[in-house]
Amino acid sequence: MAKILAIDVGGTKIAYAVIDENGKFLIEIQRIATPKDIKNLKITFENIIKTFEKEIDAVAFATAGAVNLSNTKVESSTANMPEGYHLIDFSTLTNKPVYVENDANAAAWAEYKVGAAQGENNTITITLGTGVGGGFIVDGKLLRGKSGRGGEVGHIKINSRNRKCTCGRKNCFECYASGTGLKRTAEEIAETNEIFKSGIYKNKNPKDITTYDITEGVKQNDKYSLEVFNIWKQDIITGISGIVNIFDPDSVIISGGMGEYINTEEIQNAVNAQNVVSPVKIKHAKAGNNAGMIGAALLAAEKLLYNKNK
Amino acid sequence: MAKILAIDVGGTKIAYAVIDENGKFLIEIQRIATPKDIKNLKITFENIIKTFEKEIDAVAFATAGAVNLSNTKVESSTANMPEGYHLIDFSTLTNKPVYVENDANAAAWAEYKVGAAQGENNTITITLGTGVGGGFIVDGKLLRGKSGRGGEVGHIKINSRNRKCTCGRKNCFECYASGTGLKRTAEEIAETNEIFKSGIYKNKNPKDITTYDITEGVKQNDKYSLEVFNIWKQDIITGISGIVNIFDPDSVIISGGMGEYINTEEIQNAVNAQNVVSPVKIKHAKAGNNAGMIGAALLAAEKLLYNKNK
Repeated sequence: MAKILAIDVGGTKIAYAVIDENGKFLIEIQRIATPKDIKNLKITFENIIKTFEKEIDAVAFATAGAVNLSNTKVESSTANMPEGYHLIDFSTLTNKPVYVENDANAAAWAEYKVGAAQGENNTITITLGTGVGGGFIVDGKLLRGKSGRGGEVGHIKINSRNRKCTCGRKNCFECYASGTGLKRTAEEIAETNEIFKSGIYKNKNPKDITTYDITEGVKQNDKYSLEVFNIWKQDIITGISGIVNIFDPDSVIISGGMGEYINTEEIQNAVNAQNVVSPVKIKHAKAGNNAGMIGAALLAAEKLLYNKNK
Repeated sequence: MAKILAIDVGGTKIAYAVIDENGKFLIEIQRIATPKDIKNLKITFENIIKTFEKEIDAVAFATAGAVNLSNTKVESSTANMPEGYHLIDFSTLTNKPVYVENDANAAAWAEYKVGAAQGENNTITITLGTGVGGGFIVDGKLLRGKSGRGGEVGHIKINSRNRKCTCGRKNCFECYASGTGLKRTAEEIAETNEIFKSGIYKNKNPKDITTYDITEGVKQNDKYSLEVFNIWKQDIITGISGIVNIFDPDSVIISGGMGEYINTEEIQNAVNAQNVVSPVKIKHAKAGNNAGMIGAALLAAEKLLYNKNK
């Protein structure tokens, strides 16, 4: 039985645990704050590894950012990581085999292996959070592309409503389907649609309406909140329809904090009504908040120990 | 050396030839009219096969429509084929191994193996013709999806300009980026943009302006035609940008009759300016008009004779 030390690297916290090749946690997850400078970040990684080095077969990292094809480096540093993060060669941190994977890719792998998409060789996991992430399994393999940067589903264009995305371009899926996208839709509707003035937030400055306000408003049956929420859902349907027509997948798995507000049956019916391919299943994620860690551990187990997913 | 009888099935013509495993034509291409009823179509197939049966190792079909995963049937009949086309089990036409592939997929395989994308394991071929077709090579394998219907890139949504697509939905890539799309853009611009009245087609009914008119107008530097052509190019850039962000491919190969009007360098620069992944190459197709036949033959050779691309 292989034992993998899995380390999930986030901008504020680093989480780690030892996981077996079936995705079972052998120790409870530990968490520490992410150091603010690259030197201490590296020392932190080395110390975590040292603690478990004798009992493990490999080390797996799940991280934000684009990971290189040999799964040893993060090529594009993300804004909330210490400067120089892309310079770390993870393979030099220990003599054990090391495997680094983008967290959205790793989460998709976890859904495929131990989550909602088990046995489905063509499956896509879309993470709806502050941003929009994606991981694509094609014929039982993770889609990485020529450089390892594949899967950036948040940056397909879905309309021409002229909204600027954080990536600097316009009309990306992410700037509509994310939690931030919902908030921005709320602001736009407040400014252009009379329905706002009859809703429960009529005395609020539209700029101050939050994602939380809208999800709460929906619960209270507020017409303005429902209008905003419906547009958000339509934008999600538009994006998913497109990728389903390209991939003809068994399933699309919805994860992330905003994914909880999705009625998957409703989205499934709408997407299948727009498909030119065969019907797809839309499901909630099942691998949980630690899907990234689990997926990275499982990929490491396959790649490093059995050389299956090279 | 394997010899494959390759048969390209179109709505008006059936073309066939014997091709070797390197894509070399061993006989000149023969062409006959496509019979209008299913019984005679089947007889025609059988007669073509009978002529070459003794000298060939396998039969490959390239056809419009969605092909099933076992590559023996066309599951969704296309409008211009005889009724009942989807009922033909191609594997029963002969005792030789038979391999059926969608023509856009087959063309992409030909570009990958003997065309513009040789050695590029992640490559997408987009066919711009009356419609828009696509074939995706991921990590050296053809993307088929769960049912064999994958690759329908013509039906990703790219904007919200509210144009109806032949598939019955709205705003699909196909209804903007195809030749028909160019014509429809021409009509819309004529109706809404003053520039039409100063152009060379000002005395024409906008409905009568053809795709050919616009490509000719561009050659004559007609401002209206240039405006229409620019919008068409932008729509193509929007669609390609999205799929590049998902696939992070080495290359996107542009084929089809309308592809000839594309300046690939211009599109490449525009797409790379919008990418969040690594730069992509955009190139014209090289495998020629018979790419579908060649690709089907090469796939048949790999699958049936060497069992490589199962």
